Amino acid sequence: MLSDEQYRQKMQQRKAVQAQRLAERNREKGLIIVHTGNGKGKTTAALGMVVRSLGHGYRVAIIQFIKGAWEPAEKAVLSHWPEQLAFHAMGEGFTWETQDRQRDIAHALAAWELALTYLRNPEYRLVLLDEINVALKLEYLAVETVLAGLSQKPAMTHVILTGRGAPAALIEAADLVTEMTLVKHPFREQGIKAQPGIEF
Amino acid sequence: MLSDEQYRQKMQQRKAVQAQRLAERNREKGLIIVHTGNGKGKTTAALGMVVRSLGHGYRVAIIQFIKGAWEPAEKAVLSHWPEQLAFHAMGEGFTWETQDRQRDIAHALAAWELALTYLRNPEYRLVLLDEINVALKLEYLAVETVLAGLSQKPAMTHVILTGRGAPAALIEAADLVTEMTLVKHPFREQGIKAQPGIEF
Repeated sequence: MLSDEQYRQKMQQRKAVQAQRLAERNREKGLIIVHTGNGKGKTTAALGMVVRSLGHGYRVAIIQFIKGAWEPAEKAVLSHWPEQLAFHAMGEGFTWETQDRQRDIAHALAAWELALTYLRNPEYRLVLLDEINVALKLEYLAVETVLAGLSQKPAMTHVILTGRGAPAALIEAADLVTEMTLVKHPFREQGIKAQPGIEF
Repeated sequence: MLSDEQYRQKMQQRKAVQAQRLAERNREKGLIIVHTGNGKGKTTAALGMVVRSLGHGYRVAIIQFIKGAWEPAEKAVLSHWPEQLAFHAMGEGFTWETQDRQRDIAHALAAWELALTYLRNPEYRLVLLDEINVALKLEYLAVETVLAGLSQKPAMTHVILTGRGAPAALIEAADLVTEMTLVKHPFREQGIKAQPGIEF
């Protein structure tokens, strides 16, 4: 345990390091952000960034690639910003619901074409491509197509791409990549069902 | 590449497995949720769960342990639910700002006492203890104290504990644990500063 004086000195040093770091980090740039991994929180953390951006008064577009429409609670939340938010649910439930690969591919391509219109529009500061990594993993979309699209975005636009299984080429191209790792999950271990507020 | 028919069969099988799983998972329970790790998204994913719960009409309490007040954007977002949300910023900026261990400990204890009042109140369906893991790691709070408090919560209350360095005993007691792992970060690698919507 540090003495109070040692603690003060340690924190003073840390403050100086932190101040220097902040001074060095002076660039602004629209980021390509990837949330991947098998853990929870990929879409939920993206939702956090979406509402934060809405709180800043920015325009935001959400395109859902795989899942069906978001649940009523998300819709109730997002309905507070009708002027700033464009929301498109392009998927049709989970992939095992449809059992038709050609139809799934057609939906993914349509979602991507729509996403491109927002990615090219500088009025939108944040574009969330929800579950697009799953569409990439299932080869509904080619990663080259998506990278070519991302390269067309205006400099200050942030893009979030969520879903497990993000391909290596996307991680390579991204600025900020977080892997959500499952340490413990009550579904599996305790037979607990998805609950409002937590899962939807 | 699977043929369309193989694809259909695979997805049909997956659908059956999924249906069985959902049938087995029929318990409801207030969860102890931990977001830890060095990656981004711990507080942001918690914010996502908070707004989702607000969208369901639930009461939510947020207690901040270390950081100062949330930024204007978060406040603007949360101001849409004044009746449902209790928000308390108990920290005083980052720890290296204060350089006074006794004062930091006093703040953490005061935050914890306040947190307990919400943890015991069944009207609150979700209690977010933001950055409490940092207070535990720095030994401002004892993990035994926090575990004793969590054991007093009503059965249906969810609690989220965020921050890097969650102690092993907390992970052991938790139902749902996600580690946010940093794969790539533009701060470090490209000298990019914290940007609105993404970091705050």
